[in-house]
Amino acid sequence: MADASDILTLCRRRGFIWPSFEIYGGVAGMFDYGPLGCVLRNNIVEKWRALYKGREGFVEIDSETVSPREVFKASGHVDEFSDFMTFCTKCESPFRADHLVKGFCENPDILSAKELESKFEEHGIKCPECGGDLGKVEEFNLMFKTYIGPGSNRIGYLRPETAQGIFVNYPNLYRYNREKLPLGVIQTGRGYRNEIAPRQGMIRMREFNMMEVELFVDPEDKSWSRFGEVRDCEFTLIPQDGRQITVTVGEAVSRNIIVNEVLAYFVYATKQLLMSIGVKEDKIRFRQHLKDEMAHYAADCWDAEVELSYGWTEVTGVADRGCWDLSRHAKFSGQEMTHFKRFDEPREIEEERIKAKHKALGPRFKNRAKDIAAAIEALDPSDIRDDGITVTVGGETMHLTDEFFEVVLVKEKVSGARVIPHVIEPSYGLDRLFYSVLEHAYDHDDEEDYTVLRLRPSMAPVKVGVFPLMEKDGLDSIAFRISEELRMSGIEAVYDGAGTIGKRYARMDEIGTPWCITVDYETIEEGKDKGTVTLRYRDTKEQVRLSIEDVENRIRDMLREDA
Amino acid sequence: MADASDILTLCRRRGFIWPSFEIYGGVAGMFDYGPLGCVLRNNIVEKWRALYKGREGFVEIDSETVSPREVFKASGHVDEFSDFMTFCTKCESPFRADHLVKGFCENPDILSAKELESKFEEHGIKCPECGGDLGKVEEFNLMFKTYIGPGSNRIGYLRPETAQGIFVNYPNLYRYNREKLPLGVIQTGRGYRNEIAPRQGMIRMREFNMMEVELFVDPEDKSWSRFGEVRDCEFTLIPQDGRQITVTVGEAVSRNIIVNEVLAYFVYATKQLLMSIGVKEDKIRFRQHLKDEMAHYAADCWDAEVELSYGWTEVTGVADRGCWDLSRHAKFSGQEMTHFKRFDEPREIEEERIKAKHKALGPRFKNRAKDIAAAIEALDPSDIRDDGITVTVGGETMHLTDEFFEVVLVKEKVSGARVIPHVIEPSYGLDRLFYSVLEHAYDHDDEEDYTVLRLRPSMAPVKVGVFPLMEKDGLDSIAFRISEELRMSGIEAVYDGAGTIGKRYARMDEIGTPWCITVDYETIEEGKDKGTVTLRYRDTKEQVRLSIEDVENRIRDMLREDA
Repeated sequence: MADASDILTLCRRRGFIWPSFEIYGGVAGMFDYGPLGCVLRNNIVEKWRALYKGREGFVEIDSETVSPREVFKASGHVDEFSDFMTFCTKCESPFRADHLVKGFCENPDILSAKELESKFEEHGIKCPECGGDLGKVEEFNLMFKTYIGPGSNRIGYLRPETAQGIFVNYPNLYRYNREKLPLGVIQTGRGYRNEIAPRQGMIRMREFNMMEVELFVDPEDKSWSRFGEVRDCEFTLIPQDGRQITVTVGEAVSRNIIVNEVLAYFVYATKQLLMSIGVKEDKIRFRQHLKDEMAHYAADCWDAEVELSYGWTEVTGVADRGCWDLSRHAKFSGQEMTHFKRFDEPREIEEERIKAKHKALGPRFKNRAKDIAAAIEALDPSDIRDDGITVTVGGETMHLTDEFFEVVLVKEKVSGARVIPHVIEPSYGLDRLFYSVLEHAYDHDDEEDYTVLRLRPSMAPVKVGVFPLMEKDGLDSIAFRISEELRMSGIEAVYDGAGTIGKRYARMDEIGTPWCITVDYETIEEGKDKGTVTLRYRDTKEQVRLSIEDVENRIRDMLREDA
Repeated sequence: MADASDILTLCRRRGFIWPSFEIYGGVAGMFDYGPLGCVLRNNIVEKWRALYKGREGFVEIDSETVSPREVFKASGHVDEFSDFMTFCTKCESPFRADHLVKGFCENPDILSAKELESKFEEHGIKCPECGGDLGKVEEFNLMFKTYIGPGSNRIGYLRPETAQGIFVNYPNLYRYNREKLPLGVIQTGRGYRNEIAPRQGMIRMREFNMMEVELFVDPEDKSWSRFGEVRDCEFTLIPQDGRQITVTVGEAVSRNIIVNEVLAYFVYATKQLLMSIGVKEDKIRFRQHLKDEMAHYAADCWDAEVELSYGWTEVTGVADRGCWDLSRHAKFSGQEMTHFKRFDEPREIEEERIKAKHKALGPRFKNRAKDIAAAIEALDPSDIRDDGITVTVGGETMHLTDEFFEVVLVKEKVSGARVIPHVIEPSYGLDRLFYSVLEHAYDHDDEEDYTVLRLRPSMAPVKVGVFPLMEKDGLDSIAFRISEELRMSGIEAVYDGAGTIGKRYARMDEIGTPWCITVDYETIEEGKDKGTVTLRYRDTKEQVRLSIEDVENRIRDMLREDA
């Protein structure tokens, strides 16, 4: 099996990804997408859009990456989004404290600062770089911090997730959806996590790409209309008890392994998406988070894990965020973040209310009695203190005993109730998906002794290589014209005239190009518009001869089939 | 004509754009793209890709938005990317100093801090908010600053332009392009500018979207192979002399109004792009920057200006950045940032070299003579000081007179020379283009008395509205199925069953939907798969009756025609 260094070497050499700022020595945890990587990544995004916008009819938004502090105070990230770190007292290298005690205890990421420090002592853990003593363990917030505008009044953070940009727009989105649930919203873009010391290639990046889906549902109705379509489909799960099972989606819900239909549906939708981009089915499983590893906002979470040379690696989380985010933003902003749930029939409800005793108020307060009565009835039974209530009228505050008011039971017809929607969130790590696609496509052609990327045609950054047999006698201009025509019609095509045909096939195989066209002397002999060319298939190495027009249509058809 | 507030009101109400973080009171200069805006913006990006990747064959990359300080020190942004600001000494509001003296002098943005302060005094300028005295004028760097990793050792900035991500990758890109010029690279993504006090809607944003093109060319060859295709096309220019002229692209170059073919070609390509997204031809002009308004990196620059309710507004700059960026990064990083320009024929060049006099060195230095001779010949004639040279051999430094060396003229055959490429940069402000498209599409239907967005079909965020005449009797399920099928095949379609058909047309017209389909009782009567529906055209209001299959194909064809 290919290991990460094979993939990263290929990526650098052929222009999939490059370490960022390499001419300045690079920055750990940062990568740029080169010409091939950029297209492959966009192809993944388009599959995700086709699933969520096309099939599910969700809407897409794009919100800002810099956010004022209020947003992440409310979301809990200011207080919770941190790792424990330590510096070496000698060489000053920074480390994640939990990484240093790995191998010495079971679950290092749930230890406190004090516990981590005593593990250092207990096991004699020193700086891995220089052997020096490790310093105090401190919390380090992983958000990049900045200031918005001049001065330092307004703290801003680079968003650690695109999700909050959706949550803070809930009132707008709810109105856009004509005040109906379910409401599905997607967003793709950058997320930022100021890692202490990132080391694992594309798996742990300081600036990464996400594709997030926030589905707002009625908290009392977690069914899903399309559930029937996937009921009999299978996936592999590892619930909290740790025992791996392969079950149908229907069974997972009926046996209460996954708590509701909508969560199960999107766990399975995630498997569909992964497979559609080329992740291998037998290397996909879903692991339920243990209670103590759940993020602060999650009520339940299933990670999609993909088997890679790094081991089983989380590439997606499908979380039930409950009403955490909306209720926090409602609390911190004072805005309404609810859904008005209309009852099938208006319901009669009984409620306790405070009613003013006009007969007692009139004689005592004369012409002020009316205003005082209004102030009394604006209160709620929970405002009663020491058997009385306090009202302020015309600047005067007065305490009134139950001589002047009474608590009555009122019956009312209401047409619905306000509820805080729950959120189901499939959150995709785009860079990890990108990497997974490459690793699962990576293959070695033993016959030719070179690397072949067996990418699905819909994923391949270059769809067609177009070669002249020789770069002369007009073969080159025909080949160039074909490549240009394909490109103008939206099919990525590359002209290549350098080296032997074998070398050119090798170059195309190595970047996963599914088809190559060669223009030869027959093409010319057959005459201008009737000339045939060879079409060569990457995986079978089969070659067929077709007219130029037919070859373009054939390619278009094969791409449509893989869409 | 519509003004900005009409557009922004429509944008908010219908979900094109929303002020960011509105539930927390918003942040000036920040906007989120809602469901319709997100699609419209992506449609613009696809037109740009079709032009630069499809037609020109350029490659696309995607680099990080957080960059270490070194990058922007080299690019000049740490020292040059700033505005003059002042605070009110009373209410502490921040202001751009040059904005405050507008109307009091011609060109406020070229004044120094001292000059601005004396303008305040001269004209008695006070705080526009509270009338208080203005404080000192200071430079404020407009880059958002942060720290990469723990501690404050590593300063990072949010990029003010995507361009630098391309420049720092030049060695990778040059290798990717097999060491050939021209090399065209595009990038779209976020740019950041920490404005002091942004006020102009989408025109001045703190976080904005760019589409940049960096074209590396041979500094001695600024011709362009496709120039002939646009030679006879016209555009309107305002050169530095200020006189507006409409000329052909060919004339602009032959009369030396634009200094070279490649710059003129991409000025015209910009006009093509603007028109293809729906900006009106008679509202596009290109204005050459005056010498003192040019950015620090630009050797020449032509702004595309679009006539909007804000006046003529810059939406794109087409700059010749010369060799500024690559030579600066070469200097600051110590890396080679050149192109090896192969001569047609090897050339003979003459060069002065230092040659050791072995006959004199041998007797004097014995067995060290050979090493000393090598050290001498590693030097260059420019190293000669006071008629001698200094070499260090085996730890000993010695000064040698011309008794031991001579300067000789050497002839050599060389196959080429290293040159620093020049960069032609069309840089598109995506948000401003987005806004321009909306303003130019905005129209009022006097007959119906409502707003119609006359967007080109390729731009429209929703292509088709699908309506059941009544939301019952199975009309709704047929309409819903049609909308779903269209969406699954990649055509944005929206089902709408609420209110009268007239109201639904109005809703669709207002967001620029070019076509609506209505399912009525005839559809059902004609039988399951043969039913016809009406297709209604937004601009002509014409309605035609077609089978469901034909209507889908008709829409596909019309979209292809507008591509």
